[in-house]
Amino acid sequence: MQAWLVEREDAATRVQFRVRRVLHRERSPYQTISVVELESMGRALVLDDAIQVTERDAFVYHEMLVHVPACAHPRPRRVLVVGGGDGGTLLELARHPEVERIDLVEIDRRVVEVSRRFLPWAEAAFSDPRLTLHYADGARFLERPPSRFDLILVDAPDPVGPGEALFGDAFYEAALRALQPGGMLVTQSGSIWFQSPLLAAINRRLARWFGRVHTYLASVPTYSIGPWSFTVGSSGPDPRAVDAARARRLATRYYTAEVHRAAFVLPRFVQQQLDEAIRATPRPLRAAGTRA
Amino acid sequence: MQAWLVEREDAATRVQFRVRRVLHRERSPYQTISVVELESMGRALVLDDAIQVTERDAFVYHEMLVHVPACAHPRPRRVLVVGGGDGGTLLELARHPEVERIDLVEIDRRVVEVSRRFLPWAEAAFSDPRLTLHYADGARFLERPPSRFDLILVDAPDPVGPGEALFGDAFYEAALRALQPGGMLVTQSGSIWFQSPLLAAINRRLARWFGRVHTYLASVPTYSIGPWSFTVGSSGPDPRAVDAARARRLATRYYTAEVHRAAFVLPRFVQQQLDEAIRATPRPLRAAGTRA
Repeated sequence: MQAWLVEREDAATRVQFRVRRVLHRERSPYQTISVVELESMGRALVLDDAIQVTERDAFVYHEMLVHVPACAHPRPRRVLVVGGGDGGTLLELARHPEVERIDLVEIDRRVVEVSRRFLPWAEAAFSDPRLTLHYADGARFLERPPSRFDLILVDAPDPVGPGEALFGDAFYEAALRALQPGGMLVTQSGSIWFQSPLLAAINRRLARWFGRVHTYLASVPTYSIGPWSFTVGSSGPDPRAVDAARARRLATRYYTAEVHRAAFVLPRFVQQQLDEAIRATPRPLRAAGTRA
Repeated sequence: MQAWLVEREDAATRVQFRVRRVLHRERSPYQTISVVELESMGRALVLDDAIQVTERDAFVYHEMLVHVPACAHPRPRRVLVVGGGDGGTLLELARHPEVERIDLVEIDRRVVEVSRRFLPWAEAAFSDPRLTLHYADGARFLERPPSRFDLILVDAPDPVGPGEALFGDAFYEAALRALQPGGMLVTQSGSIWFQSPLLAAINRRLARWFGRVHTYLASVPTYSIGPWSFTVGSSGPDPRAVDAARARRLATRYYTAEVHRAAFVLPRFVQQQLDEAIRATPRPLRAAGTRA
């Protein structure tokens, strides 16, 4: 008998990966956590049947989530990661010597524990001496943050179940309050083909609070059959501009300064959708770089 | 009962699209030709179980195959399309008033006839008064071309079965001979994740004959779960440079001058694979722009 892991794009479109073996499966208070070995993609962490990371292509997602804002911000010293229990985002943050302190807030302690046991990069990533780990709800955590941040990286699953609050208007308002002047928030924002209403909504919501909102793309094969999107809200610098000298010093497999700039160039039909979404939004309730 | 169309990336990775209905199915002398209606992607032309085009995402592939070389060449007057029986490439060529004559060589007359009947754009595309249609083997046709071309667009299926000869060394040599000085050839060159040996081989083979070889990317959801690649061999102009004024006049949904430039920026791991492939190749046997 052959087992296949099924990822659904929509009711009529799905991707299947053949499973060599199941390494772990448990039910945490929040979700079902599995680790499987996929024949074509290596080890994969799966939450409630949705692939979070695989050994083969995780670097695309984590490099693009981290290095784009980190090389656009002039001096990212304090970073908050919301979610990110698989450790991949921490692994990429470790390449930035400017970062002095990292707070990571993950709702499900078991995701961290399972990742440290089964994902090859996770044990080292969670041993970063700059890291403070919080097991808490990300949205609640942001109501009373321990400090202000230069970057907030929202490394969240899809906006269903426990992840839903991390895509809402209240969350973005709280995030802006928790940022230093000139700070930036980046969030994954879904597939351009199968989640375009979500992508437009994220642009609209961020544009209510942030002076600059820009979407960029990278294809992560195990997330979607089309490009995956990330969206930055910045209260200061233009996220499309890159500190090329810092970018060049990074040991990466996907990201370069040229990839940074090119990732913000959107297909015309996507650019038009987002221009429309943002045009329909009242301009920032709080001007860029200021807060109440 | 539900029917699903299955696309295989490799033996352990596949994509499935739910079929609403089958509109046509026949066995031609060359292949099985089907037209189906997919719930999520609209009408699709399927040859030997591989999706060639769908209503929803064909524009990505055809715009990028046509407009990149056409806006990089200073004055594309004569164009040869090898394959392209679904008419999508012709549809995009119709947007270039500089093009005076188009030859299209398709091995399978039934692909053209079925496309004209079932694909909404095809009847108009094949009615272009500049078009001369040849039902012949593309590789043989190039041995005695009716004229010399500014652009050769290889709109071929995967290099298995009837398409195999369109990816070989002899084909690229004949293509160079059939090009005007400064002419360019572009070919689809497969998935960067699942066909990287093919992509490297195409770069290597083209580099034997063409002074400039460059790969560019676009994600076509029904082709692969990762980005799709296209590779240009140029005997003259740099294909990464774009005539922005001509690009701006095109009514497109995907392509813009900015998309043109950004598409040539490759992820570092892909760029490294191709640099290696080309370094291992003896530099052009015939200097750029010259021929025996």
